[in-house]
Amino acid sequence: MLKNVRVGILGGSGYGGSELLRLLLFHPNAEIVYITANEHAGKSVAAVHKNLLGFTDLSFLPTPDDLSTLPEVDVAFFAMPHGAAMSLVGTLPNGTKAIDLSGDFRIDDPEIFAKAYGREQTAAELQKGFTYGLSELFAEEIAAARLIANPGCFATATILALAPLIKNGIATGNIIVDAKTGSSGSGAKPAANTHHPQRSNSFYAYKPFTHQHLPEIEQCLGRVGTVPSPPVFMTHSMPVSRGIFASCYVQADAEISAAEINAMYREFYKERRFVRIVETSPDINWVKMTNFCDIAVHSNGTTVAAFAAIDNLVKGAAGQAVQNMNLMFGLAETAGLLFPGTNP
Amino acid sequence: MLKNVRVGILGGSGYGGSELLRLLLFHPNAEIVYITANEHAGKSVAAVHKNLLGFTDLSFLPTPDDLSTLPEVDVAFFAMPHGAAMSLVGTLPNGTKAIDLSGDFRIDDPEIFAKAYGREQTAAELQKGFTYGLSELFAEEIAAARLIANPGCFATATILALAPLIKNGIATGNIIVDAKTGSSGSGAKPAANTHHPQRSNSFYAYKPFTHQHLPEIEQCLGRVGTVPSPPVFMTHSMPVSRGIFASCYVQADAEISAAEINAMYREFYKERRFVRIVETSPDINWVKMTNFCDIAVHSNGTTVAAFAAIDNLVKGAAGQAVQNMNLMFGLAETAGLLFPGTNP
Amino acid sequence: MLKNVRVGILGGSGYGGSELLRLLLFHPNAEIVYITANEHAGKSVAAVHKNLLGFTDLSFLPTPDDLSTLPEVDVAFFAMPHGAAMSLVGTLPNGTKAIDLSGDFRIDDPEIFAKAYGREQTAAELQKGFTYGLSELFAEEIAAARLIANPGCFATATILALAPLIKNGIATGNIIVDAKTGSSGSGAKPAANTHHPQRSNSFYAYKPFTHQHLPEIEQCLGRVGTVPSPPVFMTHSMPVSRGIFASCYVQADAEISAAEINAMYREFYKERRFVRIVETSPDINWVKMTNFCDIAVHSNGTTVAAFAAIDNLVKGAAGQAVQNMNLMFGLAETAGLLFPGTNP
Amino acid sequence: MLKNVRVGILGGSGYGGSELLRLLLFHPNAEIVYITANEHAGKSVAAVHKNLLGFTDLSFLPTPDDLSTLPEVDVAFFAMPHGAAMSLVGTLPNGTKAIDLSGDFRIDDPEIFAKAYGREQTAAELQKGFTYGLSELFAEEIAAARLIANPGCFATATILALAPLIKNGIATGNIIVDAKTGSSGSGAKPAANTHHPQRSNSFYAYKPFTHQHLPEIEQCLGRVGTVPSPPVFMTHSMPVSRGIFASCYVQADAEISAAEINAMYREFYKERRFVRIVETSPDINWVKMTNFCDIAVHSNGTTVAAFAAIDNLVKGAAGQAVQNMNLMFGLAETAGLLFPGTNP
Repeated sequence: MLKNVRVGILGGSGYGGSELLRLLLFHPNAEIVYITANEHAGKSVAAVHKNLLGFTDLSFLPTPDDLSTLPEVDVAFFAMPHGAAMSLVGTLPNGTKAIDLSGDFRIDDPEIFAKAYGREQTAAELQKGFTYGLSELFAEEIAAARLIANPGCFATATILALAPLIKNGIATGNIIVDAKTGSSGSGAKPAANTHHPQRSNSFYAYKPFTHQHLPEIEQCLGRVGTVPSPPVFMTHSMPVSRGIFASCYVQADAEISAAEINAMYREFYKERRFVRIVETSPDINWVKMTNFCDIAVHSNGTTVAAFAAIDNLVKGAAGQAVQNMNLMFGLAETAGLLFPGTNP
Repeated sequence: MLKNVRVGILGGSGYGGSELLRLLLFHPNAEIVYITANEHAGKSVAAVHKNLLGFTDLSFLPTPDDLSTLPEVDVAFFAMPHGAAMSLVGTLPNGTKAIDLSGDFRIDDPEIFAKAYGREQTAAELQKGFTYGLSELFAEEIAAARLIANPGCFATATILALAPLIKNGIATGNIIVDAKTGSSGSGAKPAANTHHPQRSNSFYAYKPFTHQHLPEIEQCLGRVGTVPSPPVFMTHSMPVSRGIFASCYVQADAEISAAEINAMYREFYKERRFVRIVETSPDINWVKMTNFCDIAVHSNGTTVAAFAAIDNLVKGAAGQAVQNMNLMFGLAETAGLLFPGTNP
Repeated sequence: MLKNVRVGILGGSGYGGSELLRLLLFHPNAEIVYITANEHAGKSVAAVHKNLLGFTDLSFLPTPDDLSTLPEVDVAFFAMPHGAAMSLVGTLPNGTKAIDLSGDFRIDDPEIFAKAYGREQTAAELQKGFTYGLSELFAEEIAAARLIANPGCFATATILALAPLIKNGIATGNIIVDAKTGSSGSGAKPAANTHHPQRSNSFYAYKPFTHQHLPEIEQCLGRVGTVPSPPVFMTHSMPVSRGIFASCYVQADAEISAAEINAMYREFYKERRFVRIVETSPDINWVKMTNFCDIAVHSNGTTVAAFAAIDNLVKGAAGQAVQNMNLMFGLAETAGLLFPGTNP
Repeated sequence: MLKNVRVGILGGSGYGGSELLRLLLFHPNAEIVYITANEHAGKSVAAVHKNLLGFTDLSFLPTPDDLSTLPEVDVAFFAMPHGAAMSLVGTLPNGTKAIDLSGDFRIDDPEIFAKAYGREQTAAELQKGFTYGLSELFAEEIAAARLIANPGCFATATILALAPLIKNGIATGNIIVDAKTGSSGSGAKPAANTHHPQRSNSFYAYKPFTHQHLPEIEQCLGRVGTVPSPPVFMTHSMPVSRGIFASCYVQADAEISAAEINAMYREFYKERRFVRIVETSPDINWVKMTNFCDIAVHSNGTTVAAFAAIDNLVKGAAGQAVQNMNLMFGLAETAGLLFPGTNP
């Protein structure tokens, strides 16, 4: 019988950690050994994440400066604020694998990283050992990796929407990505932009042209094929709790029909259980609480539109992290992740 | 090895049917043999309930007038409009069990039924064979039953909130129930009261003093203990998709402390996996998409307040129906139902 | 021609101040002389309250310790955190009127105040000079007052729902008030209970039996008639931005019909422009952004149910404050306040 | 003293009619003579639009086939389903002006119209007499017009966002418009796409490449300047009641800075009271219930992004219709329309 993967979660007070708990407590081949959260150290997990009441007796540990002092695990998930994993990953025992949900190790080039995140890459050597964990594109590499940089939520939806076009050389002109996110993407800490009285009636753009996921998208797509020019990447806030919706517009050199594009996408993703090609449009409603990325594609001749919808906390964070764990430990890619969304 | 329970679902186009599908497709001991929906007959289930895309190849059958013409199943779930089960249950083969999610068989007295539902009880003989399926209160009867009347969503929350007080003779004076429901309780068919532009900013009372769940509540509580006088039952609409929140106010003869009340509830529900006693207040947020009923109780001396929160479509409908199926077939009561909610 | 009332607003960064601005900028007989907000001192008002862009050139002043150093006004509105007005009102020039939107001066008895608000009444002498500004009940007193304690939002809805029953001696038994509020009632400062990802799916009770508006309700109703016993007052949070909905249940000694109750309410409020008696139920949707209190009443014989809906920031705060100003300065009671809500 | 404009409203049961009522009841220079709605004929307006309770004694008339049988008015607003105005406008008395809020007369070319709306233009001669009522662009023509085709909501936001770029010849390459609408844009009639249980958690694209507002946008922008190629126009549904947000991406031949673009927009709209140029991004929250169009512009060198936000029922429908009426009757353009939005 398969031995369970022993798991540690670093940073369990936020939504990333909360979702990891929810998924891993029910994973058929995983066992949570510890979870840390400095602000809640000593408290029971279910007192903080009340959805888990009755499901776990775990309590939060403080996060030590030296992770080798924690109980032994096979893999540690880092669900900490940007910047924290950089100083902690190096203290893991050598044999322990790591999956980082922050942006700390996603960007190969330290200069681009510094510009995107406004901080220095202080673990540049370590960064070279990281594999970018977009499960649908790099399954083999991920299976062989010790260190995984889990993709950003916007990046996941955008890359999955564009990859078949890049791979097949369709995108020869401008690429415009109009991306929208729900409020949980801003994290569990109350802030002005997630204050209910205003957020509940709002829709607005933010970080025009400069969102930090853009270099991650460019770097990843560049490994898939030729990106003709830097995509325009524009992020917006939606008044829902969960969901990313990416509308991608690509100029093609030659006319290509909707049927051809659809066939191309179905072929590209035919082996990928978590990508579903749908008609007309995906909807964040149908993927909420799931690990699916639903995609629809259209053409008006030379402009191709590709829409992708994911749950930012599942396929855009914790779900994809577990998917990567599955690949890294030779488990079924779908283990613990195959549940449908809900209708209303 | 345990043989799977073969299941049929009658009326699969609404939210009750959609939730039954979602739960039963993943039930470890059940197999869906058929699902019917006249308006969608011939269509694939996943084309209607897009959350299920990739999870089932089932297609909708039409609902025949004679259910014995359908493939053989061990249990049939009726998720049809009020009034439909009355004329159909009698056509089931004798050995087939039935769980009715509508209000058709919940009321023992045909006169009270007619008044509450505005229609005659045309299957009064059949009704006598039905057991009221409030799983937490009548598990033994349910286990022995062939026919189950699955409780209403408001009734489930209200009865679970009040049962310990009734059982222990605490409620000697007035009982006021101020109950609130989300929009999915009105079903999958668009209507004025669920029109998004207005519902999303609304809160209002409806059916003052006259909601059809009141006789069901009285009848059920009357089996638990002495109900001093007919409860006042007032229903309201909340601008959320899922959730029932029942605020119950009970006058006691003698002073009773919050601590005593809490101990009483914890004792009453100590063996019931799907009732959780919480501090301060339950929240529909923490039970959404789950089969839990979260309850909190308070006292100011002689007024006891009991709050209960459930997901109207799970513990208030499909989840409790599956829980009843589990009890009827000797399965673990929690089989296929033990998943936590989500935080955001 | 009528000289405009010169107005000052103390504390203009929150929702109370923002609504005062919105109303007073368009008031036909008022002129805003200054507005203060320490955290925004020097900034333009429209940079903070973006809805006002293009409507005002006002900038925020700091709030001085001695209000007599500010430009002369006829009336100062205090829209500051609880506790601030207590130390500031006394520094106003003698001739300046004041309307306090906080809870500082609503409670006559310093001991009850201290218990309700968790702080000492440090201006007890001053408090005696304050008139409770429930405009519909105390118009004459308000007209003659120099100092007004503007009622709380919950208190306004509850008192207006109950006053006719108290006045007419109908309420002889228990009074239960099940009250619900939108998120803007918690103010403009982000906090855990107004964090969009969770608030948008939530409904829960808070401060069971102990909300600070209860003594205010008792004190005010006691001036209207005999309150048989302390009402049970239970507050809940709704997932909308604006709105208070109060469901009040009153035990009567003798049977009273719905028609009698309705006639009683219509008579009681026949001169009050901002109270509308409606059928079945009020709805927060129909009063949002307005100064109306919509009320419906029902009876099942000896239990009377009265429902009231208001916009917590208008009739529950800034609108009623302006209504009181109108009364104090001999203006039409409705001046600047007579606009309808919107349908969707 | 100015005589009031006598107004008739044809089709008062929907949101367009409801908003016209709300605005015109308070217009300083208008008087509503009649309002029609076949389905509500004989009912009082306030019974249907409960926000107006206490503001009007008007009742709905049936809509006659021959409008000359109605009382005389100076202007008739048509707020009817698409297709109705075509057969009715011709029956107006010659001297009566008309403002049509439907799409019936917006498109000059009958073939393009037929393709966009899926119906024949049966009043092609009449159509030639219509002026396109985008108030900010065609004020002089509107002032001289008898018949106004009031622009669509999507078209209004998109055209106002793009006009300065077209006028100044900046848009030389592709134009991509990613547009989003709230649920009230679908009208007052319940439908699957506005069913609260699903709409409240949804975001999706619809009518890809084929929305009927595209030809209206092209036709109008073609009058402003040279449109290099047909814009890509993609419509999405947001889970809010009110709001249009248009994100427009324009390829320029030469580099142009954000500062230059901003200066260009400020110059272009310097005389237009209802356009506000804002920083970073407009937000539907700040324009809800108002007649404003807030716009922000950015550049990354050769891609210009222009964002526009409006309230679809005010600036996108009834507000602009009243603005056009003001222009047509020589009133102040802002009469009855100058109110700010709200913060929460």
